Amino acid sequence: MEDTEAFFEQDTFARHAGIELLEAGAGRARVRMEIQRMHANSHGTVHGGAIYTLADAAFALASNSHGIPAAAINATIAYMKSARSGTLYAEATEFSRNPKLATYTVEVTDESGEKIALFQGMVYRRTPRQ
Amino acid sequence: MEDTEAFFEQDTFARHAGIELLEAGAGRARVRMEIQRMHANSHGTVHGGAIYTLADAAFALASNSHGIPAAAINATIAYMKSARSGTLYAEATEFSRNPKLATYTVEVTDESGEKIALFQGMVYRRTPRQ
Amino acid sequence: MEDTEAFFEQDTFARHAGIELLEAGAGRARVRMEIQRMHANSHGTVHGGAIYTLADAAFALASNSHGIPAAAINATIAYMKSARSGTLYAEATEFSRNPKLATYTVEVTDESGEKIALFQGMVYRRTPRQ
Amino acid sequence: MEDTEAFFEQDTFARHAGIELLEAGAGRARVRMEIQRMHANSHGTVHGGAIYTLADAAFALASNSHGIPAAAINATIAYMKSARSGTLYAEATEFSRNPKLATYTVEVTDESGEKIALFQGMVYRRTPRQ
Repeated sequence: MEDTEAFFEQDTFARHAGIELLEAGAGRARVRMEIQRMHANSHGTVHGGAIYTLADAAFALASNSHGIPAAAINATIAYMKSARSGTLYAEATEFSRNPKLATYTVEVTDESGEKIALFQGMVYRRTPRQ
Repeated sequence: MEDTEAFFEQDTFARHAGIELLEAGAGRARVRMEIQRMHANSHGTVHGGAIYTLADAAFALASNSHGIPAAAINATIAYMKSARSGTLYAEATEFSRNPKLATYTVEVTDESGEKIALFQGMVYRRTPRQ
Repeated sequence: MEDTEAFFEQDTFARHAGIELLEAGAGRARVRMEIQRMHANSHGTVHGGAIYTLADAAFALASNSHGIPAAAINATIAYMKSARSGTLYAEATEFSRNPKLATYTVEVTDESGEKIALFQGMVYRRTPRQ
Repeated sequence: MEDTEAFFEQDTFARHAGIELLEAGAGRARVRMEIQRMHANSHGTVHGGAIYTLADAAFALASNSHGIPAAAINATIAYMKSARSGTLYAEATEFSRNPKLATYTVEVTDESGEKIALFQGMVYRRTPRQ
């Protein structure tokens, strides 16, 4: 967990977006973002980029939890419901992993458990050659 | 263009991420982001969430350029190359549009024209019933 | 279930690809595909299009299970592992649904439970105006 | 071109789906599919899996055109318009490529040039170590 906290400490943009680490372990992570004025888009709801960044922070923690640097190579996000106030949560789960590639899903919910977004992402892992 | 500028003025999160409007027209937009310390991820390169937010800002401008409110319903991003310094650009182009749904592609490049990311997104358009 | 079977009977391309309905209910479905020579790609493994079609058949059944016609508007698939022989299974689950849009995930596994692909798709639902 | 034709000859599922090679070169390919009864879905229009398979065939040809085996690791497709008859065309273009990963876009159009679908896919390339 110490490593996870140190890893998250260095995630400058996630912190700039007001994201906080809740917990992380092998292949999983949970983060939250209290909705603030800075998160608004032009329609007055939470920006798709802020929701993506929240999901991405959980994805980065989960995919870098095995001691091998992992870089996102692509991600998809589906938005279900707009959010205006309160706190959003993102929970990342490892779906599959091999030495080179791994896939994660991240669910974003609000504080009443309503589904806000569903994210699916893949990383390239820099596993050393043997 | 006046409307576009007003629309972008209200995009609080994009501005919080240091994104600037370059130009926008019917179904297209161009924005930029000068890389700053705030954009870093835990690996010291530009955060996937920052690159996504840059692409998403162009997507929002392009998809809201027809006078009908458009809300993102999903998006995919592929990352080609990490970025460390300089300025990133995102250019959104309308691929297709009907009264309810429209699809856009956004290319993210660095200042030497190198491809950084490719984004494809869809919006739901609140076209009034007739 | 009768309706589901009739719906699947009319899914000509899924049947042309050797896909069989196992079970379906409200917001969910399970199908299978016994790997045959016709499913091969140029590398001799099961074609990405065949795996996608298998996932898509489950997605179509699950999303059309509520009595409202649902048309796929986009989908993403991640491939984990190639398959060569045996039977593949796809199981679709509804993640969220509102009157106009709904999102589903589909897991594709082989007969020993190994993960082959992960699919996420969205439909536009033709819910009548009231 | 000879190699391309041989590669396509072995794409059994694409041929089973009635797909034909039109032309292919370095990082690009063009294929077509004459709509037949076998391509129908339960709504009587061309199946999403058939459209995906058409796009995927062009993607496979384009991504395997450099003499290095390339395996699809993920893809996204957005559907714009349903198709009922005539011929569909898919054209793949290379967006970016490095020794390990490459990204392609594929446009699917009907015979009057109407946009049917937009596909974006990534491959993992088995470039030998030096």
